[in-house]
Amino acid sequence: MPMQNQQVVLVSRPHGIPQASDFEIRTQPVPALSPGQFLVENAFLSVDPAMRGWTNAVANYSDPVPLGTVMRAFSAGRVIASRHPDYPQGSQVMGLLGWQRYAVSDGSDIRRIVRETDLPLSLSLGVLGLNGVTAYFALRMLGRPQAGETVVISTAAGAVGSIAGQLARMAGCRVVGIAGGADKCRICVDDFGFDAALDYRQDDLAQQLQAACPQGIDIYYDNTAGRISDIVLPQINRHARVIVCGTASIASWDPWPQGPRVERHLLNKAASMTGFLVWDYEDRYEEAIDHLAPLIRSGALRYREEILQGIEQAPGSIADLYQGRNLGKRLIRLDDE
Amino acid sequence: MPMQNQQVVLVSRPHGIPQASDFEIRTQPVPALSPGQFLVENAFLSVDPAMRGWTNAVANYSDPVPLGTVMRAFSAGRVIASRHPDYPQGSQVMGLLGWQRYAVSDGSDIRRIVRETDLPLSLSLGVLGLNGVTAYFALRMLGRPQAGETVVISTAAGAVGSIAGQLARMAGCRVVGIAGGADKCRICVDDFGFDAALDYRQDDLAQQLQAACPQGIDIYYDNTAGRISDIVLPQINRHARVIVCGTASIASWDPWPQGPRVERHLLNKAASMTGFLVWDYEDRYEEAIDHLAPLIRSGALRYREEILQGIEQAPGSIADLYQGRNLGKRLIRLDDE
Repeated sequence: MPMQNQQVVLVSRPHGIPQASDFEIRTQPVPALSPGQFLVENAFLSVDPAMRGWTNAVANYSDPVPLGTVMRAFSAGRVIASRHPDYPQGSQVMGLLGWQRYAVSDGSDIRRIVRETDLPLSLSLGVLGLNGVTAYFALRMLGRPQAGETVVISTAAGAVGSIAGQLARMAGCRVVGIAGGADKCRICVDDFGFDAALDYRQDDLAQQLQAACPQGIDIYYDNTAGRISDIVLPQINRHARVIVCGTASIASWDPWPQGPRVERHLLNKAASMTGFLVWDYEDRYEEAIDHLAPLIRSGALRYREEILQGIEQAPGSIADLYQGRNLGKRLIRLDDE
Repeated sequence: MPMQNQQVVLVSRPHGIPQASDFEIRTQPVPALSPGQFLVENAFLSVDPAMRGWTNAVANYSDPVPLGTVMRAFSAGRVIASRHPDYPQGSQVMGLLGWQRYAVSDGSDIRRIVRETDLPLSLSLGVLGLNGVTAYFALRMLGRPQAGETVVISTAAGAVGSIAGQLARMAGCRVVGIAGGADKCRICVDDFGFDAALDYRQDDLAQQLQAACPQGIDIYYDNTAGRISDIVLPQINRHARVIVCGTASIASWDPWPQGPRVERHLLNKAASMTGFLVWDYEDRYEEAIDHLAPLIRSGALRYREEILQGIEQAPGSIADLYQGRNLGKRLIRLDDE
């Protein structure tokens, strides 16, 4: 009898944030391997804000997930059977293997073979996954931090923001986080070592930000758009760099939301605002890992994970992200260890 | 009896675009020169969109012109008396000498000594002045044009846009101008050699733009903000560069105008939007002139001037700019040649 796979399938096209009811868990047999294929048993499924965009039909940086197919997602697992010479049995891999227990792959959807096998495999989806690679390249290539500069980060306690902030601190910057609620602000300062953290729910955020950034703002690492950005932009310095890494506070782009025009801020300050897509750095992935893994081993770089147990947690896990309920990189654990 | 100076003085703080009534022409004696000073007789006064910002009290990239003082402006003239060794009598100079017939200078307000004395002095305020230097560095440093790319330019028939478009053509780009009215569009194509020009007053500008840019838009050289930008941004390509060089279509920033949020466009396309201030290139001014002057001499680079005669034309000359009435770089000529 063939092994049974469990797959989380997208069954309806969400308008905005995908809900649990947009998915169904389906069971079907794992197909036999053809030459050039291998079978991955996923240990962890990733839950990422970008997945909202993948479920929506509106134009985006990648094609929408077709209805009736496995939800596109990063996952990490072990090769348990192989007819592909580059992926022998026992390899640990990470890639776009989807929200499912088993994935048959020909290697095209594999992002990387996990080399840092001394560290937990879950990290390959977080601080040593796209979150870490994103924070590393976005800060370094678009932010170009200089010692003594002030860096403001939104969703600062999140999987990307927390890494970007710590890397900015290591570059000698003053780091001010913006996060939702007292718990996340405390984590930013106590766990991640930020210089200050502000709760965006406060009415006087603009005044608090000004007080926390007496030298103005040189880099704004933004994961939100919306009201937070509208408060930050008037406080940027000459030659400031705004990194547009996410738009978490915008529930829907249909109809397209309005906001204060940015041109005058950019012009007055000769400042820049640049979108970051980690796909632009696919070829340099290992460079980021080589930088980050030693910092993890030494304890210099801190991270938080929020691990849900069991594939049945997957369907509702994206919506939670957008309600700011999670504290740390959100993962679904499939193995029973 | 001392020589009499005529000065255009800012007498009221405009809300938005400065009008003729915000200025007064005053006559007073030219003071005697102290050691280290020299006297410039202005031949041309410049009229620039940036002067709107200089008259407004709201925060900007430079301090507002104090009420009761000579209007800040670029002008070009000849040194007619000198007690400064670096600026001998007969030198031609360009600088922030103000809207006045005579200017006493210690050199600190001089932008440059005009070396290209074989060319008309008026050019030192236009194509070989800040307009040319702006177009050259903004396109080159922020636009980074590559052969085969598509460049869209707003206020394309204007003093900066017309130069930027020609330079982009020389870089091997397809150049599409956006301008106000049929006359300006015709000038863009016939005089400046753009591949196409679109009248922004048309209702179907978005469709026209799409038709004119079948390969999408790689560089958007924007002098307007507002509706034109809102139509261009959804059509930018991956890694597009948006140059924010002016905001001519925004009549006032108080109250701050709203527009469609830009973050999603920048993120989906990993695109950038960067403000350009020519002051950042003060040290490299002559590099631009060395590039542009030979192109003027050979006829490869075309320009248009609109010269008003007499200082009494100055007070109303900014408002006209914002109504799109001018065709070419606007100047006030003071000498009677």
